[in-house]
Amino acid sequence: MTYKWQLPLGIGLIATCVFWSARRVPAEPVQERIVRLAELEIDAAHVEAYKAALKEEIETSIGVEPGVLTLYAVSIKGHPEQIRLFEVYRDADAYKMHLQSAHFKKYKDLTANMVRSLRLIETEPVLLGSKYH
Amino acid sequence: MTYKWQLPLGIGLIATCVFWSARRVPAEPVQERIVRLAELEIDAAHVEAYKAALKEEIETSIGVEPGVLTLYAVSIKGHPEQIRLFEVYRDADAYKMHLQSAHFKKYKDLTANMVRSLRLIETEPVLLGSKYH
Repeated sequence: MTYKWQLPLGIGLIATCVFWSARRVPAEPVQERIVRLAELEIDAAHVEAYKAALKEEIETSIGVEPGVLTLYAVSIKGHPEQIRLFEVYRDADAYKMHLQSAHFKKYKDLTANMVRSLRLIETEPVLLGSKYH
Repeated sequence: MTYKWQLPLGIGLIATCVFWSARRVPAEPVQERIVRLAELEIDAAHVEAYKAALKEEIETSIGVEPGVLTLYAVSIKGHPEQIRLFEVYRDADAYKMHLQSAHFKKYKDLTANMVRSLRLIETEPVLLGSKYH
């Protein structure tokens, strides 16, 4: 009986675990999370252009900012001009960095004339339950 | 030069990838997602009891229901009796199953006298951007 395969098999398992763990967002205390809601009314004539700008802003923020954890955007059924956002940032610093980012400023400039009203709501997390984290 | 280590190393890598992939929630078309918002006002005298019941309901739903993907609960800053929920279900069937589950019914019974008002808002996803999925 030979055991020559055990060392490389073990190295393979460990290397892959390390790789996958690095891909996952590290767990931090939920108490530090910044969770913000936004309620927007969009000019009906610009709903599609607004959604395109919003999608680009979300994809870029999630893609390049390590502290932007969740940007969920929905419209109210039957009222496509009524947009609701649920935003989770890792902590206060991550939130500040997001507001100063070039892609966020671009989104704000692009959509300034499309947004009829904007209400930002600061919140305290009760529980952020998710299958994903 | 020997290549004996390559097969077990490869098996190790593949086995670990399969294992980790199985742990992740499979990607499904976001169009099928059911996303619901809820706005609740809780009787000020029962806020803590309500939060405890809500947390238990969220933990159980996320833990045992494969189709309950996200249940984010927050209170509005400075208004702990104002609760906002952002709920994502895999599809319409998963949403129906959740409403019929024993733990959801228990939560509804427990909190019936704590909730002063409840507004459910059906939505259409624009983009559910997340670091986690």
